[in-house]
Amino acid sequence: MRPFDLPLGFKYATAYAGIRKQQKDDLALIVSAVPAAAAAVFTTNKVQAAPVKLARANMRLSKGVCGAILVNAGNANCATRNGDRVAANTTKALAKLLKLQPTQVLPASTGVIGVELEEDLILSKLEEMVESLNENSLPDVARAILTTDLQAKGASREVTLRRGLVRVAGVTKGSGMIHPRMATTLGFVMTDAVIPQTLLRRMLVRATEVSYNRISVDGDTSTNDTLVVLANGASGVRPDPKEMSTFEESLTETLQSMARQIVRDGEGARKLVSVEVHGAMSDSSAASIARSISNSPLVKTAIAGSDPNWGRIISAAGNSGVNFDQNTVDITLQDIRVCRNGLACPFDELDMKQRLDDTDVSIVFRITGKGKGSATFWTCDLTEDYVHINAAYRT
Amino acid sequence: MRPFDLPLGFKYATAYAGIRKQQKDDLALIVSAVPAAAAAVFTTNKVQAAPVKLARANMRLSKGVCGAILVNAGNANCATRNGDRVAANTTKALAKLLKLQPTQVLPASTGVIGVELEEDLILSKLEEMVESLNENSLPDVARAILTTDLQAKGASREVTLRRGLVRVAGVTKGSGMIHPRMATTLGFVMTDAVIPQTLLRRMLVRATEVSYNRISVDGDTSTNDTLVVLANGASGVRPDPKEMSTFEESLTETLQSMARQIVRDGEGARKLVSVEVHGAMSDSSAASIARSISNSPLVKTAIAGSDPNWGRIISAAGNSGVNFDQNTVDITLQDIRVCRNGLACPFDELDMKQRLDDTDVSIVFRITGKGKGSATFWTCDLTEDYVHINAAYRT
Repeated sequence: MRPFDLPLGFKYATAYAGIRKQQKDDLALIVSAVPAAAAAVFTTNKVQAAPVKLARANMRLSKGVCGAILVNAGNANCATRNGDRVAANTTKALAKLLKLQPTQVLPASTGVIGVELEEDLILSKLEEMVESLNENSLPDVARAILTTDLQAKGASREVTLRRGLVRVAGVTKGSGMIHPRMATTLGFVMTDAVIPQTLLRRMLVRATEVSYNRISVDGDTSTNDTLVVLANGASGVRPDPKEMSTFEESLTETLQSMARQIVRDGEGARKLVSVEVHGAMSDSSAASIARSISNSPLVKTAIAGSDPNWGRIISAAGNSGVNFDQNTVDITLQDIRVCRNGLACPFDELDMKQRLDDTDVSIVFRITGKGKGSATFWTCDLTEDYVHINAAYRT
Repeated sequence: MRPFDLPLGFKYATAYAGIRKQQKDDLALIVSAVPAAAAAVFTTNKVQAAPVKLARANMRLSKGVCGAILVNAGNANCATRNGDRVAANTTKALAKLLKLQPTQVLPASTGVIGVELEEDLILSKLEEMVESLNENSLPDVARAILTTDLQAKGASREVTLRRGLVRVAGVTKGSGMIHPRMATTLGFVMTDAVIPQTLLRRMLVRATEVSYNRISVDGDTSTNDTLVVLANGASGVRPDPKEMSTFEESLTETLQSMARQIVRDGEGARKLVSVEVHGAMSDSSAASIARSISNSPLVKTAIAGSDPNWGRIISAAGNSGVNFDQNTVDITLQDIRVCRNGLACPFDELDMKQRLDDTDVSIVFRITGKGKGSATFWTCDLTEDYVHINAAYRT
């Protein structure tokens, strides 16, 4: 997670507040030395958790300025009687301790839906957390925000610009209820570059589209999805107008790495599957086909069983709503062509089975013709363990 | 499957042609004594099997007249080099034996995609099948068309009309790749009522909408879906104009029974789950919510684990694209209210767990307010066995 130095001017802290049963930190705090330019995207689910509603409102009221993010795991604070009050009171109390405007604190929660969240559990830990803030605890934050995840997830980049170095680092969580629609689950990205808020917002939206919106574990979108980028300018380095695209590329790569880590750690998953589509009439048509293949339980179970069942892949593509001639489709699995012009190709079954036993699986779906549209999605295999994990999550 | 007499004027035959490895009949024949008025709906998948393409064409060319249906299991005849020729040659050969126009024979196939279907296997069995045609073998047809299904599926009704009795009977297959979009998998319904073709077509479309389009096993739509109704008039009884709705009701009930049997026999399923939505602004909004709940893997795994996790139900509803106020939602599981006005209700956990262990589970999602829209979907639980079955289907 940390091949590079962390962005300057950010501090972190975590604590165990007793929100989750297992004794493992369930509170995390991210604080910027100076209020940072902030951009955020939230779930598109019509049912929204209290922290999502408050974070949206705070982003609007603060005009995209944020000094701190307060996260809890173990309880989604969604469909709760006191949810709005808990989110408001805890962020207000934190703002007071940090001498910030209340609207400059963003809350985020993840965990079970429909169970009341006790605000005292959080309030009683805030002072201790603020006192323990330090520059090195980002890995602790990555661990504290997890739920059914097995792996902590983070990514970082350094970008060398004409005026100096800037750093980007992010942490994320998510393992189930993952679906390519807007942001998914929680993600927090910090950079010490100087980036104007409106530009940061545009970069985040574009980067989300080709990262968090391109992954699928199970086709469900949660009530709590929140993805925030903070740019505090602590490096003093502002990219040249020409360098903005270099910075955006690093931000995008960071988000793509975080997104892929979510899929690799998908509930019960043993394989990361990349689905590339080429030759569609547009990038968005290619994305629709890639999404449909990535979401198909029949494709995902076949991958789990190392079964080169390309018939399910072409069938899933046919369900995408995109028009294509099935006689122009080539499908490649692990670099071996299994379907040419919509028909079976001979291949060595044993060799293919072994190739599909790899933890990284590549599906390339190519429409031959004039189309230039392409897209890549990431998904995982669907195993018995996914069912096992989810049949017993709440109880 | 047969509480009532079968429709008059239909004969059936089955045979083992060696298309599937397991020695179990894989060919089925349905023949009407006189060419029948026929209506059919087919898959909406852009990738279409050869028999679907030919059946569509034959329905158009024959103007909805059909004398025989030839079905094979074990091979979908989809994405095959010789698929069109195999479908054409086998139906033509059968037409010749039965002295029908070739366009009056409808083909249907189900099984693996992308493997060539040998026409000789089918051709060599046709004479024997025609010779063995008889009025009682519909249950054999129900068995011969199965793939991963565990249970043969059929339904029948008798309708007493002013001028006499008419009979409706149908058989169907399907267990995976089941999704509420148009018809799903194969279904064949026979009636000896006198029904004009155009009216039969309208009845089938309406009945499909509230039966086959209301079930979900795994959210995939196959390349071979075909649902045909034949009305041969052998009873001599034509419903009065006023009685047409009585007949349509029986046809609809037959299709609903067949559709529910598919879900109950869903791959790996142990429970049939009915999802009722009330209080939406329209029936179609209610159907969207019910579809979203029925398709959610998180809801379906919770049901598998007898976990009353209503948070996943409200979250799935929030992903349907339908606007509703989460504070007006009541959710009932097995007649026990677990969520009122979007918030948790107290209930006896142990009692609920026992209720959810039943093989029939009821979810009622009610929006309180002025809306009068309602819809019912049927789905099944998602178990480890679903994954197990599908990870090893082709190989």
